Amino acid sequence: MTDLAAVKRALTAQRIETPSWAYANSGTRFKVFAQPGVPRTPEEKIADAATVHRFTGVAPVVALHIPWDKVDDYAALGSYARDLGVEIGAINTNVFQDDDYKLGSVTNPDAGIRRKATDHLLEAIDIMGQTGSRDLKLWFSDGINYPGQDDLRDRQDRLAAALREAYDRLTGNQRMLLEYKLFEPAFYATDVPDWGTSYAHCLELGERATVCIDTGHHAPSTNIEFIVAFLLRQQKLGAFDFNSRFYADDDLMVGAADPFQLFRIMYEIVRGGALDPAYGIAFMLDQCHNIERKIPAIIRSVMNVQEATAKALLVDRDALTKAQQSGDVLEANAVFMDAYNTDVRPLLAEVRADAGLDPNPITAYRASGYDEKITADRVGGTQAGWGA
Amino acid sequence: MTDLAAVKRALTAQRIETPSWAYANSGTRFKVFAQPGVPRTPEEKIADAATVHRFTGVAPVVALHIPWDKVDDYAALGSYARDLGVEIGAINTNVFQDDDYKLGSVTNPDAGIRRKATDHLLEAIDIMGQTGSRDLKLWFSDGINYPGQDDLRDRQDRLAAALREAYDRLTGNQRMLLEYKLFEPAFYATDVPDWGTSYAHCLELGERATVCIDTGHHAPSTNIEFIVAFLLRQQKLGAFDFNSRFYADDDLMVGAADPFQLFRIMYEIVRGGALDPAYGIAFMLDQCHNIERKIPAIIRSVMNVQEATAKALLVDRDALTKAQQSGDVLEANAVFMDAYNTDVRPLLAEVRADAGLDPNPITAYRASGYDEKITADRVGGTQAGWGA
Amino acid sequence: MTDLAAVKRALTAQRIETPSWAYANSGTRFKVFAQPGVPRTPEEKIADAATVHRFTGVAPVVALHIPWDKVDDYAALGSYARDLGVEIGAINTNVFQDDDYKLGSVTNPDAGIRRKATDHLLEAIDIMGQTGSRDLKLWFSDGINYPGQDDLRDRQDRLAAALREAYDRLTGNQRMLLEYKLFEPAFYATDVPDWGTSYAHCLELGERATVCIDTGHHAPSTNIEFIVAFLLRQQKLGAFDFNSRFYADDDLMVGAADPFQLFRIMYEIVRGGALDPAYGIAFMLDQCHNIERKIPAIIRSVMNVQEATAKALLVDRDALTKAQQSGDVLEANAVFMDAYNTDVRPLLAEVRADAGLDPNPITAYRASGYDEKITADRVGGTQAGWGA
Amino acid sequence: MTDLAAVKRALTAQRIETPSWAYANSGTRFKVFAQPGVPRTPEEKIADAATVHRFTGVAPVVALHIPWDKVDDYAALGSYARDLGVEIGAINTNVFQDDDYKLGSVTNPDAGIRRKATDHLLEAIDIMGQTGSRDLKLWFSDGINYPGQDDLRDRQDRLAAALREAYDRLTGNQRMLLEYKLFEPAFYATDVPDWGTSYAHCLELGERATVCIDTGHHAPSTNIEFIVAFLLRQQKLGAFDFNSRFYADDDLMVGAADPFQLFRIMYEIVRGGALDPAYGIAFMLDQCHNIERKIPAIIRSVMNVQEATAKALLVDRDALTKAQQSGDVLEANAVFMDAYNTDVRPLLAEVRADAGLDPNPITAYRASGYDEKITADRVGGTQAGWGA
Repeated sequence: MTDLAAVKRALTAQRIETPSWAYANSGTRFKVFAQPGVPRTPEEKIADAATVHRFTGVAPVVALHIPWDKVDDYAALGSYARDLGVEIGAINTNVFQDDDYKLGSVTNPDAGIRRKATDHLLEAIDIMGQTGSRDLKLWFSDGINYPGQDDLRDRQDRLAAALREAYDRLTGNQRMLLEYKLFEPAFYATDVPDWGTSYAHCLELGERATVCIDTGHHAPSTNIEFIVAFLLRQQKLGAFDFNSRFYADDDLMVGAADPFQLFRIMYEIVRGGALDPAYGIAFMLDQCHNIERKIPAIIRSVMNVQEATAKALLVDRDALTKAQQSGDVLEANAVFMDAYNTDVRPLLAEVRADAGLDPNPITAYRASGYDEKITADRVGGTQAGWGA
Repeated sequence: MTDLAAVKRALTAQRIETPSWAYANSGTRFKVFAQPGVPRTPEEKIADAATVHRFTGVAPVVALHIPWDKVDDYAALGSYARDLGVEIGAINTNVFQDDDYKLGSVTNPDAGIRRKATDHLLEAIDIMGQTGSRDLKLWFSDGINYPGQDDLRDRQDRLAAALREAYDRLTGNQRMLLEYKLFEPAFYATDVPDWGTSYAHCLELGERATVCIDTGHHAPSTNIEFIVAFLLRQQKLGAFDFNSRFYADDDLMVGAADPFQLFRIMYEIVRGGALDPAYGIAFMLDQCHNIERKIPAIIRSVMNVQEATAKALLVDRDALTKAQQSGDVLEANAVFMDAYNTDVRPLLAEVRADAGLDPNPITAYRASGYDEKITADRVGGTQAGWGA
Repeated sequence: MTDLAAVKRALTAQRIETPSWAYANSGTRFKVFAQPGVPRTPEEKIADAATVHRFTGVAPVVALHIPWDKVDDYAALGSYARDLGVEIGAINTNVFQDDDYKLGSVTNPDAGIRRKATDHLLEAIDIMGQTGSRDLKLWFSDGINYPGQDDLRDRQDRLAAALREAYDRLTGNQRMLLEYKLFEPAFYATDVPDWGTSYAHCLELGERATVCIDTGHHAPSTNIEFIVAFLLRQQKLGAFDFNSRFYADDDLMVGAADPFQLFRIMYEIVRGGALDPAYGIAFMLDQCHNIERKIPAIIRSVMNVQEATAKALLVDRDALTKAQQSGDVLEANAVFMDAYNTDVRPLLAEVRADAGLDPNPITAYRASGYDEKITADRVGGTQAGWGA
Repeated sequence: MTDLAAVKRALTAQRIETPSWAYANSGTRFKVFAQPGVPRTPEEKIADAATVHRFTGVAPVVALHIPWDKVDDYAALGSYARDLGVEIGAINTNVFQDDDYKLGSVTNPDAGIRRKATDHLLEAIDIMGQTGSRDLKLWFSDGINYPGQDDLRDRQDRLAAALREAYDRLTGNQRMLLEYKLFEPAFYATDVPDWGTSYAHCLELGERATVCIDTGHHAPSTNIEFIVAFLLRQQKLGAFDFNSRFYADDDLMVGAADPFQLFRIMYEIVRGGALDPAYGIAFMLDQCHNIERKIPAIIRSVMNVQEATAKALLVDRDALTKAQQSGDVLEANAVFMDAYNTDVRPLLAEVRADAGLDPNPITAYRASGYDEKITADRVGGTQAGWGA
């Protein structure tokens, strides 16, 4: 039988990290639809993140993106965040928006550009020191658009050299998270296209380096929960970038496209004992709210992760194991689906009430007046987006 | 046996339409890398298109995009083009970049926005009258990002109404081309996602409405040449937007990702008797040269289409039919591959020489000084891109 | 607000058709794992189908497959079925297992083989007359494995001719259902690969011809509910073959791979007013229970369809329309998801109890002794499979 | 400039391994179309393989499949092969066709079944000792069809244990090749689904264990040449199973679906210095000739690999590197495409003539009378297929 108290404890302890850039404007190559009230500064992004935490209780960390969140005084930014009840999480690097990076950053055939890109990684580690961040998150858009454009293998050598240099700079409890992505913006070959590539590099780097799974970065039909289970077994899963997709890297709200998949992913997390924040996995969101209102979309996303987690925790593990061991395919599947088919919203409402929160974060946010306030206040200046 | 003289005549008569916007800056949602020498005006785009035609001899038409190519005097723009040796081709509409279109244009739940979008279509038809264009090309980014966001079927009704209104405005030899696309920028459901949807609407509209196939707009594994063959049989294929892709709508140079597929497509065109300009199919390019130099990339793309066409023309149709009729799978495939495996570059060099062109358009372009000239001349002003 | 009584009525009236061959052995090209107790005759298959109906109350129809279910006296078979409480549903044709069909059946380059295949279709219509079946279900494996192997367009002409001949033979309330499939067993081009092809042929044939959607027969990323909505709008949706898949035509239990997708499909059915049996859509299962026990797997599948239907019926249509019309993306999605996140198992238990059934069909089946009985009784003879 | 003599030497030295089972009957789950003249014994399969070698000169190795090629005296079988001019290559294991393996072989929850499966691996190693084979090729169909059916991670532990036991039994120059496959016959999760999983296991096993890439076993859009380049860099690429596909594991003739992809793969082989047999990569075919004549299909496949290899060897590496280093995207791609667009059939005809072979192996085979002979001789007995 499921221990409901333990389930509630686990749900109460859950921590989800939201990304500063999700509060800013985003779009597709066709159009960025600006929204009123969007933050203009890193501080305003953090304020929005703190608001999400205020209504959900499980989002106490906000990830930054450099240079989009560049400030003069990171220590002050950290204090500002703590005063609002959140802390600075992963530092995300950006080596894809400078003109120099047209043909690659750390894998560019030009040694000078590689130097510049690698220096940016080192700078991000310095910032980590100032913000107290644990995680350096690396995503490289590096790749090529045409067969023959560059040498696939040389680019791996260059990548390995840059990763090594950054890795060796890490100190204390600092870690490196290496994200992979099948394609976009590179359209023929991406230098870190899949989990195997990221895993192989992390293994060579050492134990501080682990893989970051972005749930929207796979080929069609990829079984993501298998990757989760496998990397947990290898002790090389470090983080998630949660979002959902129907096609490619759509960056929709997590759980919106395939809630059953999210449940299966969270089940592997629970089964692997990796839900506990002490295990060290960073559960981040990485989404684009192109057409929907951003803050409630992020609140909704946090709730979707909570619901999938609650269902995963409700799986009757003893019954499941018994059915699996006896080879009863239908019964094992039924036990698994019983948890998924449970309506966990009342349970989560209880968890929130127990924590002194409104049981319905969306309603509460809407009633709070925050949305109206930022719309009224944030007038003038330049809205934040992917470019700044 | 293949009639080589007939092959040469067909290659000489071939017409490929290049798009004005491919000469402008383009990129991904992550970054637009601007290039030196990029046009700042519709006239400069047309000059570039004329340059491509000057070196290839088979690209005498340039498609416009409204409002990106908006001018006060379209008749004057047409004269300008003709003076440079090219004519204005399809008029492409844009109902995806105005803030009003965040939730759709002609399928928007808001009637006022639908009216505005439909009026833009009518405006484009007016422009066609002024430029003498035959083709109204319609691509709708319309769709929704989340299940439940809007009613799928109501949106079809709205779409049909707008198409009908535009269709009824067509006069003379004017036609409507309806493009489809699986996804992007809509990430859950697109209102014209596949050829079947476009075909069904075109059929209801009437004989002036035909389907436009963009070779990058399909689900993985889609057999595009089947669609070509099928639409030709139904007399509903009106145009191509050529480009190539490895993943999604990558918009790489046509023939760069899968030259064998391009050959198979062109074979169905040849087999269907549809290569001749008199048949009425518009063979357009629609590509993004994000990292490579634009004009030579377009020249290369034109050459890739020519090479695929030449191979298609070289298929020994009698031998093929004989093998097919006798059920000799290997022989039929071998006949087909014999044409594909032929190196047609010498043949095309001859065709060009016969037409008074340099047999190697790329080398000739590079030697012409045009690239250096536009780089030096086009300084200041605002470079054209997808936004203007 | 949702009218619960109406929801229950709709669920009570629902009809799902199970296929005779799903009770027989099936497998992959690598291995067919035979199961004890599998039927050896059409009668035993019908007895199993009747058992599924006995425990679910919504599966009163069983589809046959000719020649797998060939008998001397179809009228007697129909009586046998009726005595067990079920009726004969669609007659499925088989023009893919005779050696003659190696290169195609109705699209074969050999006219004699086309004649033989078309005659089989006519034979099936004769059988329909004897069984009182309304639906002729056509799936053609026809296609080619290699580019050039046969002429894509000629094959369409041959297909159209065979369909026409069969269509013209239909009388009374008889209908033709034309199924499509992306690939397998043809691996380069399939003659009816997508809904557009099936739709175009059905449109030309006439109003008795409609499209059958097999939920496992699409390219990756295809939005199936869009096709449902579109075909309903065109009044050309005739049937489903339900199953589920993670990769290709996996033929798993419907609802097992993506229950949210099944819900979205059933929502379009409900929204289109097409759930009512009077509308005329045949909701069939078409699955392979390769490793799981067959009868309970089919019961489970029926229940999965019921649950998706119940959720679809629970969508608050007024609230949804209001949110959609006002452009509130998040609220519209939330209304939609509220229905999906509801645990409808208690509601369905009530519906069953009201109908005098055990609220848990799986438990009831397991307790019934039927499984033990068929295992003990069906010894000797030749188990039915795809070949017989 | 390309050294043509070196190219010819490389082409002459090339070795391709053909699989015994490709000479036998094969099909899809829908139908196996038997062909006249198909081998009935391992000896007859080897005779066919020797025939392919006789006409191509580059296929001197034949892979066996146990138990399909089970004989009493493997040493005698080896002598028989050598007398015909070929040698025994990889020993392929089969732990997917026994009824016990319905829920898995080495990953089965049942320890007894795991023991049986592991013993089969050890038996295969014994056979290697008798045939003098270097390579143990392992493909596991193991996986699950339904979420929850079994524990993903436990199955990895079981897999690792079986691999370890087999690995430790290897002696001399014996190696283990671990193949991966995305899906089929498992339809939800496969235990070795991708190169990353195979790589991770091989790395833990030791240097005798390397990855086998089957070109048809990937998710759509996977960049296979990237995997080739990456594994070569990691010194973990051991073998290929060549075939081609448009959709899933179609097992068509290699080079038939995407000859440009095959060229790109072979380019990475050449660039990595791995074409030379001394490097140790086994270049095997693994195909199903379901509808085409088998021996000429295999000859054609060998020729397709040769053509892709010849083109890869013709890439002007100096010019390519220069263009890559200077960031000239179009020129680098053009250099690459120049090699691909070359018609290498005359070159290969020369290579064959130099080796005393007919320049056209297909024509020569057809003229040889072998096909007529086996059709006449191989009457009676049981044709070999996947089951025997």
